[in-house]
Order: sequence, then structure tokens, then C-alpha cells
Amino acid sequence: MKNVPYQTVFVELPDIEPLAKRIGAAPTGTRSDGVTPLYTVPIIQDHATGAVVSESAAIAAYLDKAYPSSGATLIPTGTKSLQLAFRDAVSAHFSAFRGFMIQGISPNMNDRTVALLKTRLSEQGIDYDAVFASEDKEKVWEKGMAGFSKIDEWFEGNEGPFVMGSEPCFSDAVLGAFLRYCRAAFGKDSKEWRNIVSQNGGKWVRYLENFAPYETIL
Amino acid sequence: MKNVPYQTVFVELPDIEPLAKRIGAAPTGTRSDGVTPLYTVPIIQDHATGAVVSESAAIAAYLDKAYPSSGATLIPTGTKSLQLAFRDAVSAHFSAFRGFMIQGISPNMNDRTVALLKTRLSEQGIDYDAVFASEDKEKVWEKGMAGFSKIDEWFEGNEGPFVMGSEPCFSDAVLGAFLRYCRAAFGKDSKEWRNIVSQNGGKWVRYLENFAPYETIL
Repeated sequence: MKNVPYQTVFVELPDIEPLAKRIGAAPTGTRSDGVTPLYTVPIIQDHATGAVVSESAAIAAYLDKAYPSSGATLIPTGTKSLQLAFRDAVSAHFSAFRGFMIQGISPNMNDRTVALLKTRLSEQGIDYDAVFASEDKEKVWEKGMAGFSKIDEWFEGNEGPFVMGSEPCFSDAVLGAFLRYCRAAFGKDSKEWRNIVSQNGGKWVRYLENFAPYETIL
Repeated sequence: MKNVPYQTVFVELPDIEPLAKRIGAAPTGTRSDGVTPLYTVPIIQDHATGAVVSESAAIAAYLDKAYPSSGATLIPTGTKSLQLAFRDAVSAHFSAFRGFMIQGISPNMNDRTVALLKTRLSEQGIDYDAVFASEDKEKVWEKGMAGFSKIDEWFEGNEGPFVMGSEPCFSDAVLGAFLRYCRAAFGKDSKEWRNIVSQNGGKWVRYLENFAPYETIL
């Protein structure tokens, strides 16, 4: 999106902390005990400047500052609080899918990543094996679908396919990432993804297609 | 905020629908049955143009269009989706206070307004008399306080006291309204309001003070 050359390095969940420490990436929060530093991806390491930045909004702000005239402006002046609120609101709507996503993505994860995920969830009081056994499965799914419709309403009357119009911004990266996560977790041919595809007149597939120019072939 | 002369007419809950119909204000949604039109305040009736507009974001858009060079621009170009997401996120954080606010504000309401409120809540499956009897009272309050800290994080590093900087926008009207609602519901001298006042280094009282130039004396 910033039209800057880059290479993606995928990192298994248990390898994030040692990698972050090795390259000097700061923790982005604390674990559920409120004390132990929490290391997360994405992290950016800019070999051109030596900068190492973690946490997606901080990365967006860094890229806008380091490459002001390249690609889209991710956080246009004055919109930072709005972009963070957008991330918060989208994250809340997608939280309904957490159980579905864990179930969907686990078969594609390495055992040691699943093991750490289980530990982290149990630290938050969430029983990994029970999270999806609930009888409210259909109700939770409906809630997630209602979230999509709510997000769809925000776009009503927009000039252009993106949150702020014709150019993508940080909030588009957030929403696009959640949608890609759903697609990857459920699988393109799954009942769940087909359900999302049919939601809001096919809006979400069209929305993801707008990112094609910015996507690397994986 | 738009520096346009106005007069506020306060309306009791049961009087909103007949008033809206009389002046030709559209419903803003449906009741919990998903069918019956729902009429809400705010509604604006502009005697200069004859326009009648309901729903706060629509009112903001109307005012920007009808009075483009007067006062603040409530929804700067390209920010509409972001402003709606902001309202959604703030509303979700404040929802933790619903029980507290109902309890706090009820003694100041007329009987027929309380009666309608009870009916509407019961239609949503919420028992008005039990909503506050829960044992999780302290936990719910903590959740609300955590919401304030989350909102505070959005403001970090902002240039100016408002969401978008030195000028207030629609999102400020939303956040300011929720804060005023809390203050009115709990009472300025209540334990609850003092707790909010002490949160985030006194941020929320300072934030409300920024609205002083825009406030009518009630």
C-alpha cells in the first residue's frame, strides 16, 4: 500500500518473542497477568533506516513519516483517533468469529503453535476445547453476520471502494486483514466463507478484490 | 458547534413518536420486533429551509451541507465511515454503563417515561428491575472504566483537545453526549461520576470543558 519494496517473513507463534528480542522490536502490551510483556506481529524491520517497529498502527504511522510521498497516506492528518476507533469497532464485530476461526485454522497450524495458543487462551480463562462446543453456535454466527451488516452501513454513500474513498488507509488494512483471516481460517470453499460471501450483496469479496494491486502472491 | 442559532425542545420518551409524525421526521430504525418503525431524538427542524432531519449522523451531514462555511465541519470529506465506526466503538464501550445509567436517571424521569422505558427494555428481553440486581456490578463497572482507558489511548499524541485536533467533529459530539449523559444520570456529586472524573488523569472533565463554548445554559 505504501509502494515500498518489502519481503514478508512468516513467524510461528512461539518464535515471535525470541525474534522480536533479537531484532529489537518492542513488546506491544502485556499478557493477561497484566505484567509479562506481550510480543506480537506484525513487526517491520526497515533495512534502509535501521528502524524496527511493532504494532500495526505504529507501523502505519512510521511508514507515512518515512515515506510521505510514496503510495497511499495510511493515516491522513487528523484521522488517527478515528482510525484507532475503527480498528476497535471492527475488532469487536469480528470477535464473534473467534471460536469459528480457532476451529477453522487449527488444522493448518503446527502442533507447537496450537499448544501455545491453547496456553494463552487458558491464561485468559478460555477453554480452547470447549470454546466451540457451546450450543449458541448459531446465535454467535448470527451475531457475526449482524456485525458485517453494521460495518456495511458505515460505507453507505462512500465515494470509492475504501473507507475514506478511492485511496486505502490504515482502517482498510485492518478490515482487509480480518476478512483475509476469515477466508484463510475457514477456507475458500467452506460453508462459513460462502455465507460471508453472500452477505451484504457480495460486498466483502468485492472489497477484498480492491486489495489485489497491493497483494503479494503467497 | 455549527454556529447557527437554534432552540432546544426537550421531549418526553412517549411524546417522540407523535411529535416526529406531526413534523414529518422519518423513523430511524425498527423496534426489537424488526418491523415497527422506531422514532428517536435528536430531530432537527430547520425553519430556514423547511428541512426535518432525524438521526444524529444524518443531522450532522445535513448541517455541513446546509451551512458549509459556518462553524466546525462535523464530517470532513472522506471521514464519514470513520465517524460512524467511532460512534459504534464508543457506544459499545459505554454499553457497560447501561444498568448504572438507568438506575441513576430514573428518579429524575416522569412516571410515564419510566413506564415506556420498562416496556421497551422488556421487548428486548431486558428485565428493568433485575438489570441492576446482578452480582457482577463491580465487574461491569470495571469493564466500563477499561473502556474509558481504551478511548483515552485513541487520543494519544493528538494535536488539540478534540478527536480530529483543534476543531470538534461529529465524533466529539458523540463522545461528549455520552459523557454528559453519564454526568446527568449519576449526578455531579455521585460516587460514580467522581470515579469517572478521576479516571485517566482527569481527562474526561477537561474534555467536557472544551464544549463550554458550544453549550446552552440548561
